[in-house]
Amino acid sequence: MLTASASLDVVAAMPERVGDYYDLVPLDSSQANVPHKSRTFRYQTISYKATHIRTNTVCYLKRIMGCKLPTVRSYDIVEAWKKINHANIVQLREVFLTNDFDDDQPSIVFVYDYLPCCETLQKRHFSANNSLLKGWSNPYNISGEDRPFSAGKGTSQSGLLAEPLIWEYVVQMSSLIRTLHAASLACRCLHLSRILVDGDSKTGRAKSRIWLSGVGISDILEGTIQGTIHQHMQNDLQDFGRLILMLACNSIVGAQKEHLQTSLEIVQRSYTPDLKNLILHFLVPSNTMKPRSINECMPMIGARFYAHIDSLHVRGDILENELAKELDSGRLFRLICKLNTVLERPEYSMNQAWSETGDRYILKLFRDFIFHAIGFEGEPILDMAHIVQCLNKFDAGSHDKICLTSRDEQNVIIVSYSELHQAFERAFTELMNYGATGAS
Amino acid sequence: MLTASASLDVVAAMPERVGDYYDLVPLDSSQANVPHKSRTFRYQTISYKATHIRTNTVCYLKRIMGCKLPTVRSYDIVEAWKKINHANIVQLREVFLTNDFDDDQPSIVFVYDYLPCCETLQKRHFSANNSLLKGWSNPYNISGEDRPFSAGKGTSQSGLLAEPLIWEYVVQMSSLIRTLHAASLACRCLHLSRILVDGDSKTGRAKSRIWLSGVGISDILEGTIQGTIHQHMQNDLQDFGRLILMLACNSIVGAQKEHLQTSLEIVQRSYTPDLKNLILHFLVPSNTMKPRSINECMPMIGARFYAHIDSLHVRGDILENELAKELDSGRLFRLICKLNTVLERPEYSMNQAWSETGDRYILKLFRDFIFHAIGFEGEPILDMAHIVQCLNKFDAGSHDKICLTSRDEQNVIIVSYSELHQAFERAFTELMNYGATGAS
Repeated sequence: MLTASASLDVVAAMPERVGDYYDLVPLDSSQANVPHKSRTFRYQTISYKATHIRTNTVCYLKRIMGCKLPTVRSYDIVEAWKKINHANIVQLREVFLTNDFDDDQPSIVFVYDYLPCCETLQKRHFSANNSLLKGWSNPYNISGEDRPFSAGKGTSQSGLLAEPLIWEYVVQMSSLIRTLHAASLACRCLHLSRILVDGDSKTGRAKSRIWLSGVGISDILEGTIQGTIHQHMQNDLQDFGRLILMLACNSIVGAQKEHLQTSLEIVQRSYTPDLKNLILHFLVPSNTMKPRSINECMPMIGARFYAHIDSLHVRGDILENELAKELDSGRLFRLICKLNTVLERPEYSMNQAWSETGDRYILKLFRDFIFHAIGFEGEPILDMAHIVQCLNKFDAGSHDKICLTSRDEQNVIIVSYSELHQAFERAFTELMNYGATGAS
Repeated sequence: MLTASASLDVVAAMPERVGDYYDLVPLDSSQANVPHKSRTFRYQTISYKATHIRTNTVCYLKRIMGCKLPTVRSYDIVEAWKKINHANIVQLREVFLTNDFDDDQPSIVFVYDYLPCCETLQKRHFSANNSLLKGWSNPYNISGEDRPFSAGKGTSQSGLLAEPLIWEYVVQMSSLIRTLHAASLACRCLHLSRILVDGDSKTGRAKSRIWLSGVGISDILEGTIQGTIHQHMQNDLQDFGRLILMLACNSIVGAQKEHLQTSLEIVQRSYTPDLKNLILHFLVPSNTMKPRSINECMPMIGARFYAHIDSLHVRGDILENELAKELDSGRLFRLICKLNTVLERPEYSMNQAWSETGDRYILKLFRDFIFHAIGFEGEPILDMAHIVQCLNKFDAGSHDKICLTSRDEQNVIIVSYSELHQAFERAFTELMNYGATGAS
């Protein structure tokens, strides 16, 4: 869903600017050319990637066509949704009505954060490759034909998801539902096609962080009446149970009423009782006297919170280690840029300070020493480690000494890194002060 | 405790190499010169930072002086501890007996991961600045004098820690205790001085990630007998309760028996009932019939797991964003190094290909264009954004065209970034192949 792919005719018909956004690219071209009604929102929708004109942030635009914005209270609703900032929810940034698309009728555009490199839960776990087993090994008797009792009860449940993965989804979904319900908002879009998962299963880089996308659209299109919010929340919880059931039996039909018994048997056979209890608890509609709450899933998750926390710590530590490595290259990049700025400036080519007797001539020789190392037979030596080590010692002003040779091999200068560093600082400061003093 | 600070005489007396480690620096010099018996381990200990001779990893060495290694089963114990890999435990890497320190008797050295920029919980929350209120406003009647009933019952509890912070500690400590107890190991060192906290409170960069340090030392020095492990685990849980109480009433004396009543009153006044229940649950010794388990803290933590998970997600996302920015500088650094390697090589100064009519002469002009921009009055323009933009377009081989001027201003060349990129690739490949072909 989030693959940026533009067919030429669509791009040609694209307005240059929509609201405060430019550089629109339709996402998922298969959908852009066909009038397509979203199953979740019952209107024709098109998704774009676009850039905000002032902040330059890349955003995800969801355009709802042919629908009037109900003016009643929609401002309050938008503001309430914009305040929701949660690690598992794609944040709503803005909603506006626009005629910028050359249409008969205005479109409503919902602006969200853009998340690169994601796919939907539907695509991740229910695409063609993971589809159901064929024939009698399929646990679901979809065609309704007579089958032997043992059909679909094979013990090879290799297609099922690993239980820890399902619990990771449970923790994250319950977390986002909890946050929304605490803010008196309902998701109303807990469907496989609305939940994004990190990474890309095709390239084998599937990760398990999820985000709920498209929040607030139903609320704004239909308008919420205060009385219905509790019903929507109860529906969320049922959707939650249904989602987990679909994931656990790895089948979309598994959550249909007529297959419920079979699905629960699969769950019971393959997973811990906690998972079955969780699914049953939320799937069965509650009576109005005692409404369910998302908090009831916490005892069932239990110690799995710790596993989730541990994996998050590990992720953070890996990122921090990588960052520590890369921060060095940022520093060295700035250093080398400054060095290049100082060296070989044409306006100084006749300057005394840069002549062969000058103080800062050594910087030029040092540059040769770093980058132009040659072997015994004059062959160039290309060694990144040498470059990095030299620059690091140079940056730190080490007291190590090196031997620099002039190009005509007539002069040899022995100099410490700290002297080089001082010479460099002087030269660069002089360059910086040029404007102030008016002369080099 | 983890500040690397070496006084000269200590360094002079330091062996060059201990076991597989070199470059030893004593940590916390105030401790290194004074014979100092660790309260936790009852032996004189010195801490060092050192580098492993083969892997070059920086490690934390804890040297236990004047103690014989009990040979019984210690190998098994060390192996069990080395397997413990947890986000809140400083991992034990190795234990060895050595005579490399010039001592009368051998020392036992425990090697751990080295964590930079940490301080102990003791230093973070119980150093002089945060000390108890003076006189009657001190809730604890330490001198035992007669005091009015209202003494220490002031409502200004400004010195107390924020409750969410305490719960963050609770989640992490319970997580590490759980992991150890599940592996049939006991911490035996849950003390303020053994728990490290991320960041530095002095510079205002206090973070809340904790690590338990010094694990396994008690087990190895004293040897565990299988029967005592359960008692040690129960002690861990009591230590846990005591630690949280000290943190909650922000006082070390607060956990002493005679002050318990006062401390619990402070907790009750200032925090939610959950926290008081948690402290009481673990602080009160259990009877042997029904031993406590760390899992019992989970219902009391409850929804605070979600808060912790959310903050970890936020941390990960921030790091990922920073990493995304820095990865670019790594790429640009490598690019600029390659460019510098190709340019201004003395051996090519007479080469036809680099002459003013040569194909690759444009690279030299491009370098001038990137780094030697000058304004209308000849003043140097130092603009990092210009450098980064040029290099990015150059790296990507953009079709944008730029106008390069020769130094004598006689020639103007209009060239696209992609042509420059191709010229650069050719030049660099030639340099790389020098050894293979034997000629430039």
